[in-house]
Amino acid sequence: MSVFTPVSDAELSAWLQQYELGELSSLQGILAGIDNSNFFVTTSGANAGKYANQSRFVLTLFENLKAEQLPYNLELMEHLANAGLPVPAPIRNRDNIYLGTLNGKPASLVTRMKGDWSDSPSVARCAAVGDMLAKMHVSGQGYSKQRENTHGNSWRIRTAIAVSRFLTDAELGLMETEVALQATFDRSHLPVGAIHADLFRDNVLFEGEAIGGVIDFYFACTDTLMYDVAITVNDWCMGSDYQFDMAKYDAFLRAYQAVRTFTKEEVEAWDMMLRAAALRFWLSRLYDYFLPRPAELNQPKDPRHFHRILSRLVQGTPAIPTC
Amino acid sequence: MSVFTPVSDAELSAWLQQYELGELSSLQGILAGIDNSNFFVTTSGANAGKYANQSRFVLTLFENLKAEQLPYNLELMEHLANAGLPVPAPIRNRDNIYLGTLNGKPASLVTRMKGDWSDSPSVARCAAVGDMLAKMHVSGQGYSKQRENTHGNSWRIRTAIAVSRFLTDAELGLMETEVALQATFDRSHLPVGAIHADLFRDNVLFEGEAIGGVIDFYFACTDTLMYDVAITVNDWCMGSDYQFDMAKYDAFLRAYQAVRTFTKEEVEAWDMMLRAAALRFWLSRLYDYFLPRPAELNQPKDPRHFHRILSRLVQGTPAIPTC
Repeated sequence: MSVFTPVSDAELSAWLQQYELGELSSLQGILAGIDNSNFFVTTSGANAGKYANQSRFVLTLFENLKAEQLPYNLELMEHLANAGLPVPAPIRNRDNIYLGTLNGKPASLVTRMKGDWSDSPSVARCAAVGDMLAKMHVSGQGYSKQRENTHGNSWRIRTAIAVSRFLTDAELGLMETEVALQATFDRSHLPVGAIHADLFRDNVLFEGEAIGGVIDFYFACTDTLMYDVAITVNDWCMGSDYQFDMAKYDAFLRAYQAVRTFTKEEVEAWDMMLRAAALRFWLSRLYDYFLPRPAELNQPKDPRHFHRILSRLVQGTPAIPTC
Repeated sequence: MSVFTPVSDAELSAWLQQYELGELSSLQGILAGIDNSNFFVTTSGANAGKYANQSRFVLTLFENLKAEQLPYNLELMEHLANAGLPVPAPIRNRDNIYLGTLNGKPASLVTRMKGDWSDSPSVARCAAVGDMLAKMHVSGQGYSKQRENTHGNSWRIRTAIAVSRFLTDAELGLMETEVALQATFDRSHLPVGAIHADLFRDNVLFEGEAIGGVIDFYFACTDTLMYDVAITVNDWCMGSDYQFDMAKYDAFLRAYQAVRTFTKEEVEAWDMMLRAAALRFWLSRLYDYFLPRPAELNQPKDPRHFHRILSRLVQGTPAIPTC
């Protein structure tokens, strides 16, 4: 599980006095997630005011992100929620502040989204995610804060050098080629904006075929929009044979483009973006697997999953469907 | 030794019939050099024509470079020689062609330079090299051919990933940081031109304190001029304690700037260029040491030399003397 920093009922009750959310009803640690300590929090609810109808929240204690990095992410969530998208909104306390400190960690309370995630999404759900990602990208164009991707080119290079000793010769050859290719690939002509950067299946909650919530914005940053599409497609539209499920692939990309049409340059860069996305998670999983942090309690994910995806992608990429 | 492809007197005599250089007098393999097969060639001399006064040449059989890469290098040598600099000039045959084939390898004959190299250059010799490098850079501004550096960013990344398994933890940390830093360092504002890229002590021949010849242009390419200065200073001005010999350092940089003044941006980038130069040779020596080619006959050079230089450089760089 992944509650690195425990929180007691008494500690949280005292902390909640800063908010107009009523009294603490229940507190429960969340097992999912690998980077922060997360809790479901229920309160008796506010008598009045902005949060009068809300009683279900998620409390996050940030274990690795520093407080100065968080305004980008939390204000993006607020920006998207204000635009009507199903994104957790940070709760502001009596002093209008959305980020505090609890048990020595930066801590924030956000609205809890409805629904559940599923490991085997339908074609319709893939289309819904394509539609939602495009809406987030369009809405994000109005978000003015900037944050560099902490998992960009420099991170790729450092991580590849750190983990290469654990690779087979064949993996090493692929790693050398791909990291060097991505380092010299010119993305400057591709549209940039606020990206989620981690929109895997466990970060979208569904109620039936409708999206109840998009969660976990803590890798969000300013980067190439098409790279975010690639990260998402590599997860949602991937078949068990490490080839794209073409029904899901087409449905996702059509739904996205019904909201935001890709530029000619984005279409041309698509294969490199898919490869960059596979490389990023191959690298982070290699790192977590072979060089885990001392406090890491989660079972690391198998790095070979993204090695296999990348190996397929370098052989070619299906065309983007035209709308 | 490093004659990979043998050449007999009979083979060379036949080949020389294409040239107006008289008959072969002597042929002798050269032991120095790690990338090509080199020979001293003496002929009876031409009776007349462009090469009437010349009888001493160097024959090179190119073992790794492909024929299509060579025009950049050989025509640069011709360009610099025509500008009056002591650089080997490629000899053109009766058909005005300077690059042929001998024993299956691209082959070229160039004028042989006078003098000898020394492992312990005086301050005066360092100044002479600074002056000469600046003159080559200025003259090279008039050379229009372009060739990408084969040992640039992409090569650095691939090589670092390939060799990292052979590094200690401390070396690995330095490697990660430096390769990533160089990959994201913006050089676009620094002057670019034809650079020698390998102007080590064994590539400058002296007659007394005067330069008799600058040789071995086979790494020459189009790249940042200040990077070439850094490669050269890291070799010529380095003390035995891996710190700069300040008398040589100042003499070199003053002599260079008497010919071409550094821009403000070049001065600001100087420490990063010195580090890039040390990193490049640390990487190539690591590669040659741990992953030698099957045909490699030379004793590989100790990679730790440039690891030590780089370790010093990251602690700080002496200021460039003002003129």
